[in-house]
Amino acid sequence: MHTINLSNKDIHTDLIMDIKEVSGLEKVITKTKNTKVEELEINTDNSLKLNKKKGLYETITFKDITDKNNFKEVEELGIKTLKRVITKTKLQDKQKVLVIGLGNEESTPDALGPKTTKNILVTKHLFSLGEVEDGYLEVSTIKPGVTGTTGIETKDLVEGILTKIDIDYIIIIDALASSSLDRLNKTIQITTTGISPGSGIGNNRKELSEETLNIPTIAIGIPTVVDATTIVQNTLDLILKKIAYNLENNTTDKLKTIEKINYSDTKKELTTEEKEKVLGMVGVLSKEKQKDLLLEVLLPNNNNMMVTPKEIDYLIDKLSLLLANIINKTLHKHFNPTN
Amino acid sequence: MHTINLSNKDIHTDLIMDIKEVSGLEKVITKTKNTKVEELEINTDNSLKLNKKKGLYETITFKDITDKNNFKEVEELGIKTLKRVITKTKLQDKQKVLVIGLGNEESTPDALGPKTTKNILVTKHLFSLGEVEDGYLEVSTIKPGVTGTTGIETKDLVEGILTKIDIDYIIIIDALASSSLDRLNKTIQITTTGISPGSGIGNNRKELSEETLNIPTIAIGIPTVVDATTIVQNTLDLILKKIAYNLENNTTDKLKTIEKINYSDTKKELTTEEKEKVLGMVGVLSKEKQKDLLLEVLLPNNNNMMVTPKEIDYLIDKLSLLLANIINKTLHKHFNPTN
Amino acid sequence: MHTINLSNKDIHTDLIMDIKEVSGLEKVITKTKNTKVEELEINTDNSLKLNKKKGLYETITFKDITDKNNFKEVEELGIKTLKRVITKTKLQDKQKVLVIGLGNEESTPDALGPKTTKNILVTKHLFSLGEVEDGYLEVSTIKPGVTGTTGIETKDLVEGILTKIDIDYIIIIDALASSSLDRLNKTIQITTTGISPGSGIGNNRKELSEETLNIPTIAIGIPTVVDATTIVQNTLDLILKKIAYNLENNTTDKLKTIEKINYSDTKKELTTEEKEKVLGMVGVLSKEKQKDLLLEVLLPNNNNMMVTPKEIDYLIDKLSLLLANIINKTLHKHFNPTN
Amino acid sequence: MHTINLSNKDIHTDLIMDIKEVSGLEKVITKTKNTKVEELEINTDNSLKLNKKKGLYETITFKDITDKNNFKEVEELGIKTLKRVITKTKLQDKQKVLVIGLGNEESTPDALGPKTTKNILVTKHLFSLGEVEDGYLEVSTIKPGVTGTTGIETKDLVEGILTKIDIDYIIIIDALASSSLDRLNKTIQITTTGISPGSGIGNNRKELSEETLNIPTIAIGIPTVVDATTIVQNTLDLILKKIAYNLENNTTDKLKTIEKINYSDTKKELTTEEKEKVLGMVGVLSKEKQKDLLLEVLLPNNNNMMVTPKEIDYLIDKLSLLLANIINKTLHKHFNPTN
Repeated sequence: MHTINLSNKDIHTDLIMDIKEVSGLEKVITKTKNTKVEELEINTDNSLKLNKKKGLYETITFKDITDKNNFKEVEELGIKTLKRVITKTKLQDKQKVLVIGLGNEESTPDALGPKTTKNILVTKHLFSLGEVEDGYLEVSTIKPGVTGTTGIETKDLVEGILTKIDIDYIIIIDALASSSLDRLNKTIQITTTGISPGSGIGNNRKELSEETLNIPTIAIGIPTVVDATTIVQNTLDLILKKIAYNLENNTTDKLKTIEKINYSDTKKELTTEEKEKVLGMVGVLSKEKQKDLLLEVLLPNNNNMMVTPKEIDYLIDKLSLLLANIINKTLHKHFNPTN
Repeated sequence: MHTINLSNKDIHTDLIMDIKEVSGLEKVITKTKNTKVEELEINTDNSLKLNKKKGLYETITFKDITDKNNFKEVEELGIKTLKRVITKTKLQDKQKVLVIGLGNEESTPDALGPKTTKNILVTKHLFSLGEVEDGYLEVSTIKPGVTGTTGIETKDLVEGILTKIDIDYIIIIDALASSSLDRLNKTIQITTTGISPGSGIGNNRKELSEETLNIPTIAIGIPTVVDATTIVQNTLDLILKKIAYNLENNTTDKLKTIEKINYSDTKKELTTEEKEKVLGMVGVLSKEKQKDLLLEVLLPNNNNMMVTPKEIDYLIDKLSLLLANIINKTLHKHFNPTN
Repeated sequence: MHTINLSNKDIHTDLIMDIKEVSGLEKVITKTKNTKVEELEINTDNSLKLNKKKGLYETITFKDITDKNNFKEVEELGIKTLKRVITKTKLQDKQKVLVIGLGNEESTPDALGPKTTKNILVTKHLFSLGEVEDGYLEVSTIKPGVTGTTGIETKDLVEGILTKIDIDYIIIIDALASSSLDRLNKTIQITTTGISPGSGIGNNRKELSEETLNIPTIAIGIPTVVDATTIVQNTLDLILKKIAYNLENNTTDKLKTIEKINYSDTKKELTTEEKEKVLGMVGVLSKEKQKDLLLEVLLPNNNNMMVTPKEIDYLIDKLSLLLANIINKTLHKHFNPTN
Repeated sequence: MHTINLSNKDIHTDLIMDIKEVSGLEKVITKTKNTKVEELEINTDNSLKLNKKKGLYETITFKDITDKNNFKEVEELGIKTLKRVITKTKLQDKQKVLVIGLGNEESTPDALGPKTTKNILVTKHLFSLGEVEDGYLEVSTIKPGVTGTTGIETKDLVEGILTKIDIDYIIIIDALASSSLDRLNKTIQITTTGISPGSGIGNNRKELSEETLNIPTIAIGIPTVVDATTIVQNTLDLILKKIAYNLENNTTDKLKTIEKINYSDTKKELTTEEKEKVLGMVGVLSKEKQKDLLLEVLLPNNNNMMVTPKEIDYLIDKLSLLLANIINKTLHKHFNPTN
C-alpha cells in the first residue's frame, strides 16, 4: 500500500486526478464507453506553481474488470500507456528491468504487487546462459515484503539489491489507498515519480524513486482499499449531486427516486443555501473540516477503518494478472502466454 | 454469508440486538470492560407480538480480537454461552454433533465457516473403531461450499447428508453481514433459529433450521462484512450523537472537536429541529427513507458494495480459531489442543 | 487416493494395464510418439474367468505434461476417450451430471480431485433460473473431503446427497497410488467400475460405484504417489532388462553403460540362471516374495513411505486443469474458457 | 534446496554424518531413545586431510516430528545446539541477526525456509522506534526466492542487501536433499560452513558463506527430498543387513521374515561371497559403480526423480514451526509465543 508521490506535503490521496488544482491540466488520451486514459505532465514550471513532483502521471479508468471484454480492452490500453511512458522517459532501448512487487502477500488487498510478480516472465538468469531469443528483455523480479514482517526498511533493501545487480530501470507495483469510492479497483495509475510504501495507510516508509535510488523508476498502482471517511464524503457529495440533478430536471419532489442515474457525472452544483437545506451544517463545511468531523466521530471506536470489497480475493487475482500481462507484453515483444 | 432468521419478513439485518423492537427484552448475562453477553428469549407469546421467530438469541460483544487477552476472555465467554444454549435446548446429553461450515473458502471474508471446521476435532470415524476415550463427543464436520461454486442448493445437500448419517444436532457456522460498523468482527451471535445462507448479501437460499431439517440447529455467526449504506448511516448517527453530546456538555461550539469520545454511547437525542440544523433534510428522514436515498445514489455505479476491513485475512484466522476453540472445548470435555 | 476397483480381492495395484493376466486383451485405440490410448472391456464372460469387475477400462499414457504441446494433445485424447466411455455406457443423452472431487485438498498429491472440481463449469443452479443456453449440461460438483478430516464415510455422504439431488450419472475424480514409477503423473485412467477411496494407500473406505450407489459412475484417476517398494522393484526389473539388452546386443561387458536407452521397452527376458547371476537370490524371487522382503526391511523404520515428486505442486496444478478441461469440453459443447 | 558445503569437490550428499571418512570423528553430545545430537569440528589440520571445509557441524536426529512429545524434545535440543554453535563461534554478544529463508515457497518440499521466516519474531524495525524491551535481539528476515522465479542469483541478492543493512551474523534456513531414506524429515543439520542453494538438486548457484559474504553464517537445514537412486541403494543395503542379522542369529532360512527388526542398526557385515549370493553382481559393486548403474537405468525415462513423502504439506508445517521456535527462543530470551 502506498501513496504515489505527488508533492512534499502530505496530501492524503493516492490518485493525481482527484486533486482539484490539476483539474484542467490533464489531457484525455482516449475515451470509450467503458474506459478513459488521461495524461498529466508536470514540468519544471508548473511543478513549482502546483507544488507537484515533476513527472508523468497516466490514469486508466475502467469498469468491472471481471468482465472478459473489459479485461481485454484495459489490457490493451495498459500496454499502450506503459509503452508511452517508457518512450517519453527515453527507456525504450534499455534492456535490464527489475519488477518490484511491493506489499504483504499474506493480506489479500495488499497482495497486488507480489501476485503480479508471480506472473512476470523472468529471463535474467537465462541471459547469462545465452538461452534467450530475440524479442525478450532481461527481466528480473523481487518481492521485498513489508517492513512489518521483514523488519527491514523496503527502500534500504531495494537500494542494496541495486548495488549488486545491473539494472537499467525499475517498475514498482503496489496496491494504493483510494481517494474515491468510484475508483476502487477501477483505476490503474502509472507515474514516473516514485512511491512511498505504506504511506497511503498511515505508515511512514522511505520513498522509492529516481531521486532516492538513482535509477529511472516507473510506479504502477491500483487502489484496492478505501477508508470509511471517504465512503461517507463521497456519498454526501452524491446526495448533493442528485438534488442538483433533480432541480436541473425540474423534478418537483427533490428527493424523488429516479432509477439508474449515475449522479457522479452531474455538472450542476447547488448553492450554499441549497446545500445547507439538504445536508445542514455538515453540507456546507469545507472538505477539510468535513473530514475532520468524520474522523472525530469514527476514530474513537476504530471505525475509520480501511476497507476493501467482499470480493477482493477474486479481484486481486484478476488485477494482478492484468498488470502482469501489461508488463509482459510491453517488455517482451514475443511474449505469448501459455495456459 | 447469511442472515440469522429473525422473522418471516425481510428485515435487512443480521443481528438481533440491533432491532429496535426487542430493545428492553434482552437480558445482560455478563458485562466487563471489554465484553458483554446478552440473551434474548423469544417465546410463543412475544413471537407473535414481535413477529420474531421463537428461540434463543445470544450475543457476545467484544473488542479487538487480535489482542491475546481479549481472545482468551471471549473464548471463555463463548464456551459458557454455547454450553448454556445447549442446556436450555436440552441437548446436553446428546452425543452426535455435525458441525457445518457454511461459506466460500476462496473468499476471505466468507471463509469463516470452512476455516472453523478445519480446526474442529473430528471423532466420528474413530467411534466406529472403538478408539475414543471418555470425554469426547462423536463429532463430524462438512464444508458444503456455496451454491455459486457447487451448483447445489446448500439446504438440499445438508438434508441429503442427514438422511444417511446419524446426528443428534447440528452446529452451523457462517459469516454474517453486519448491520452496524461497531459490530463488524466484534460480535458472536449464537441462536437456535437457523440460518438462510447468502441472504445477508442479497442471495435467496433455502433456510437451514430445525423446521426445515427436522433436527435441532444451533447457528453461530460473526459479522465480517458491512455495506456502504450502513457505514454512511452509522456515521450520520454518530454526528448527531456528537452534537447531542456537545449540547449536553454545554459546549458552545457545536462542532468543537473533543478528543477520544466514543459517541455511540451518548444517550441524549437531538430534537427534530436540531437534527435538521445539523444534517438538513437528510437528518430528519426516517431510517427507511434515508436508506432508500443512500441506495439510490450508491447503486448506479455499483457503489453500495459490501466491504470488509483491509486486515480481514488476519481477522478470519483469529476468529475461526476462536470459534473452533469454543466448539471443541464445549463438546469435548477433555479437549486439550496441541501446537 | 484410491484403488480403481478391479476385482473383489485386493490386488495391490491401481492401474488395470499393469496386471499380467489382462495382457493381450487390451486394444490400442491410438498411439503417437508421446501418447497411447488403450481400452479394455471386461464382459460377463471374461469377468468370471479373469476375476475382474465387468466394465470399461481406458488408459491414456503420456509424457511430461508441463510441456504445452503435450498438454494440448492429451487434452484432446482425454475428451475423445471420455466421450467414448459416455457413449458406450449409453449416457450421451443424459443431462444431469455430478462431478465429485475426492481427496484431501490440504495435501498436495491428494488434492487432484478437489482442485479439478474448482475448475469445473457449474451450471445446475442456473438451470432453475432458466439462464442456460443450449450446449450446456446441468453440472454440479462436490468435494466431500476425506474421512480423516470430516469423520464421515465418503460413500455415506455421497449416497445421502444423491437422495435429495436429481442426478443422471456421476464422474468421480481421485488421485491414485501408482504401481509403476513409469506411470507416475503420466497416466489417466477412466473406468466404469467405481472407486474405493483411500484403498490405494491402505485405508479401508466403502466403495463408490454403480453397484453401491445405484447410479452410473465414471471414475477418472491419475497416479500421483508411489511407494518405496515399487520404486525398488521397478529399478531391479530395469537392471535385469538392461543386462538382457546388453546380451541381446552382444555387449561383452554386461554392466557396460549405454547412454540414453529406455530399458523398459526391452522385450528379451533373462533366464533364471542369468537373473541369479545379476541380482542373486533376490533376483529370482517371485514378485510377491520379493515385495514381502522389501516390505520387511523397509517397514520397521517407516521407510516404505508413499512418495511424490518434488515438483508435485506444479504437476497437480497442470493435471487438475487438464482433467477440468477434459470434463468441461466433453460435457458442455459450447464451453469456451475465459482467461 | 541446497547442499551444505562440505568440500570443494561435489560429493553428492547433504549430510556430513553420512560421509564415511568422518566416521569416528564425530562426538555424540546427547542421545535418548528418540533423539541424538552429534557434533563434528573440522579444524585446520583435519580439514586438509579430510578435504572438508573447516567449521562446526551439528546433527540432530529424531523420530516422527508430528508427535507432540517428540516435537517438544527436539525443540529443546535444537535450542541448546544452536546456542552452542553461537557460543563456539563467539557470536553470543552480537545483537543484529538476519534470518534468510531460502527456497521456493510455491513448492511444498522446498518451502521450509520461507515458511520458517514467516514465524520468526521480527524486531529490527521496532528498535529504531525505541519500542523493544530487554531480552530481544534485533532480528530481521528475508525470503530471497529462487533464481528460477526471480531471475536473480541468490548470493548477489543477499550480498546487496548486506551492503545497506547493518547485520552481525546471518542464519540461513533451507530444505536439503537427503543422502539417506532414514534421515528424510528426521534430521536437523546446523553448520558454520555455508550453503550452496540448489546444489542438492543439481543446480549450480553461488555459495552463501562467510567466505563469500564476509559475515558469520550459520546454516540450518532439514532434508525433505531424496532421489530414487538413494531409495534403492538404501534398500539393497537393508537387505544385506537383514541377511547378516539372520545369519548372526542362526536363522536357517536366510530370507525368513522376522517382525519389526530395524535392520539399519545391524553391525555384522556379510562377506563378499555372501553379498554376491544375496544380490548377485549388483551386491558386490562399489557404492559408486552401483550408483552409476542405477542412474543409467533410471535416467532415460526421467525416473531418477527427487521425491518427498505424500504427507509433506503437514510435515513442512511442523518442521518450519519447529525451526522458528528454535530460532526465536535462542535469539529472544523473553520470547513467549501467543496462539
